[in-house]
Amino acid sequence: MKLIIANKNYSTWSLRGWLVLRGFDIAFDEVELELFTESFYAEIAKHSGAAKVPVLVDGPIEVWDSLAICEYVNDQYLGGKGWPGDIAQRAKARAFSAEMHSGFQALRNEMPMNIRGRRKISPSEACLKDVARIDEIWAGQRQEFGNKGGWLFGEFSIADVMYAPVVLRFITYGVALSPDAQAYADHVLNSAAVQQWVNESKSDTSVVAEDEAGTEIS
Amino acid sequence: MKLIIANKNYSTWSLRGWLVLRGFDIAFDEVELELFTESFYAEIAKHSGAAKVPVLVDGPIEVWDSLAICEYVNDQYLGGKGWPGDIAQRAKARAFSAEMHSGFQALRNEMPMNIRGRRKISPSEACLKDVARIDEIWAGQRQEFGNKGGWLFGEFSIADVMYAPVVLRFITYGVALSPDAQAYADHVLNSAAVQQWVNESKSDTSVVAEDEAGTEIS
Ligand SMILES: N[C@@H](CCC(=O)N[C@@H](CS)C(=O)NCC(=O)O)C(=O)O
Ligand SMILES: N[C@@H](CCC(=O)N[C@@H](CS)C(=O)NCC(=O)O)C(=O)O
Repeated sequence: MKLIIANKNYSTWSLRGWLVLRGFDIAFDEVELELFTESFYAEIAKHSGAAKVPVLVDGPIEVWDSLAICEYVNDQYLGGKGWPGDIAQRAKARAFSAEMHSGFQALRNEMPMNIRGRRKISPSEACLKDVARIDEIWAGQRQEFGNKGGWLFGEFSIADVMYAPVVLRFITYGVALSPDAQAYADHVLNSAAVQQWVNESKSDTSVVAEDEAGTEIS
Repeated sequence: MKLIIANKNYSTWSLRGWLVLRGFDIAFDEVELELFTESFYAEIAKHSGAAKVPVLVDGPIEVWDSLAICEYVNDQYLGGKGWPGDIAQRAKARAFSAEMHSGFQALRNEMPMNIRGRRKISPSEACLKDVARIDEIWAGQRQEFGNKGGWLFGEFSIADVMYAPVVLRFITYGVALSPDAQAYADHVLNSAAVQQWVNESKSDTSVVAEDEAGTEIS
């Protein structure tokens, strides 16, 4: 099984595809392409008409889009354990995940993932609203599940996969969170899988201009 | 079970939440709110912090986001039959659905759903690229499954739910498709469920200015 991803310093959707596999201890090979290059589009076109990473290639099965990859991995390798077992909690986890997958546009535009950076920006109202909503989600789940494993639904699930890149964005831009939301963010950051990605991102020395938002903090 | 939606003439995500229930013959009550009004936000806030329609309220379970609603309905009411039975086809159906759920921003901005309208716009390059990608998906699936039921994967599935509003957008803006893609669009338009929505949308006489793109064709 092979996962095609892009620059580890910048590519949030790649991190999601990677984290569902790594976080659930599923073995895979990794192919890293450089964003916005000709070889990126040439390689991706072999596997997906959507022209985006991540793409999972599992023998004859090719799955593009991070959320579809998560559901495929859940189906094929996790026997459903990628989501909470209780149907009400599972619905909630999927709603949080879908909300991330389709929304938070202002946050995604104004606070691009840039793991190595420490940057200052002037967030818009819409971006602050996105941050407040994420704080509400993380804090609420922390209060309910904090002492049952530390992840959004206690045990690690696909919902954590979807929000993990946001933890890294918040560090780059110095976003202040409520104590419960911060406790969740710390839990994610200190996990072995996220630490591995962060370490590996250090050897990605490419600079993608459109993802260098704001000014450097010296 | 109650589905909260918005203006039938305009609200594409509402149509998706509605169509997964109606298309699979699941009984539900409908609550229609008017987009961008105070009462819209007040009512939605009772059920979801995401502040968007559709929201499905099934006893104590509240699910927001169209894709999460589809997965919940699939889990709770369809015994998995919301997606193709074959795992490779299911992965593909979820990838198409996720692609729609998170992407096609140019098309969504420039060609808002406006069922009653017949409008002329000057689409951007990005919007034309979105149209071409959708044509590719519909035509490719039509060639593979056209004589096995007429839907994207033969039988009706959640992938059709995700693309149905695009069929209605294309009519409003007079988008020309390849013959196979057009055959799929016709199949969707002529289905009983979509016909019912289109008819019911006629009693939605509200005008949402931001969704009135382009100029009227007289
Ligand atoms: N909805 C997709 C989004 C994927 C996406 O936008 N990937 C970016 C990198 S993080 C990409 O491939 N960009 C290349 C491009 O847009 O040309 C997913 O969840 O996988
Ligand atoms: N990702 C969401 C999108 C929902 C959405 O954007 N709904 C629109 C109506 S079509 C809405 O509620 N807009 C109100 C607002 O944004 O204030 C879904 O799939 O349900």
